Amino acid sequence: MNFSSKLLEDAVNEFSKLPGVGQKTALRLVLHLLNKEQEEVNQFGNTFIKLKKEIKNCTICRNISDFSICEICTSHKRDQATICVVEDTRDVMAIENTSQYFGVYHVLGGLISPMDGIGPTDLFIDGLVARVAVGDIKEVILALSPNMEGDTTLFYLYKKLKDFNIPISTIARGIAFGGELEYTDEITLGRSIITRVPYENAMMR
Amino acid sequence: MNFSSKLLEDAVNEFSKLPGVGQKTALRLVLHLLNKEQEEVNQFGNTFIKLKKEIKNCTICRNISDFSICEICTSHKRDQATICVVEDTRDVMAIENTSQYFGVYHVLGGLISPMDGIGPTDLFIDGLVARVAVGDIKEVILALSPNMEGDTTLFYLYKKLKDFNIPISTIARGIAFGGELEYTDEITLGRSIITRVPYENAMMR
Ligand SMILES: [Zn+2]
Ligand SMILES: [Zn+2]
Repeated sequence: MNFSSKLLEDAVNEFSKLPGVGQKTALRLVLHLLNKEQEEVNQFGNTFIKLKKEIKNCTICRNISDFSICEICTSHKRDQATICVVEDTRDVMAIENTSQYFGVYHVLGGLISPMDGIGPTDLFIDGLVARVAVGDIKEVILALSPNMEGDTTLFYLYKKLKDFNIPISTIARGIAFGGELEYTDEITLGRSIITRVPYENAMMR
Repeated sequence: MNFSSKLLEDAVNEFSKLPGVGQKTALRLVLHLLNKEQEEVNQFGNTFIKLKKEIKNCTICRNISDFSICEICTSHKRDQATICVVEDTRDVMAIENTSQYFGVYHVLGGLISPMDGIGPTDLFIDGLVARVAVGDIKEVILALSPNMEGDTTLFYLYKKLKDFNIPISTIARGIAFGGELEYTDEITLGRSIITRVPYENAMMR
């Protein structure tokens, strides 16, 4: 692209770094911002800087939070003995949107993926084992996307947790293999949590 | 959406204000930014703030520029007697990318659109008439998108400029009616500038 302005080019390049944003889209977004007042553009830019500076990960469940322990982990309305294990924050939000789950979460921060060089030690698995080891947990629900990485992670977590002798379930497979959990509609996702099955049963199908 | 964090929600909302960016996309972009270093996020945010603060519109052609008169309007390599009239900066960039045009530009800042409440006085038309009135201009090329608003604007500009007795041409219609100039491929757009036709001829077809 042929820019008439270095300032414009810099701004387009910043947007273009984002996943799925090409140069033409980036340009359209920048020109949209340019039509706003200075105050609005300041707010736009400063919101992300402030987010990065102040955001925390809950020390218990690793979910994104404004506090060092998140509101779900401190809530008396939530069943603190049921842990739903998910890949990332988007999955927590997707499950919260179903209004079908009242336990707490554990955010792994990814899935095991040898292809991408992500092994078990790159994920928050020790934290999960430690929570279960304390002894107050009565069920672990593994709510991972039904794809290769999800299944690999399921199998690894099952091996790590099975000796604690608590029920380990996976969300019911209402979702097509290869699907992304976060893009599943709320009804399907909510139902698949309610009809969750013991991990062993799920693997035998 | 059910946010676990106000900071996260604010950031998602900022992205969602941009045209064509839904909440799910916004969330994906915010989480992508969160994985970056603080320094990179600062650069992201500050680039737009700086752009808005420092960007100028060329006082001659109204194109976006880092200076009060743009590099094209001050260039000795450009034919300062030929003006190509376009809707906005994206069209200047699209035409510059063809490497087929060596004159200067005039950026209207929109097209006449009664439906959207945009009349001639909302556009930089007086500035164009003033440039032509000075007397050194030997041709005006009207390079507007071939749609209803483009045609309305063409007709209005033609009436305003015809008494100056200089050639007024429009870019050749290689582009389908209803198409967007900025999305036209470089070859078609470049050719349509070379094969431009006098405005009267174009209207008789
Ligand atoms: Zn938590
Ligand atoms: Zn200029």
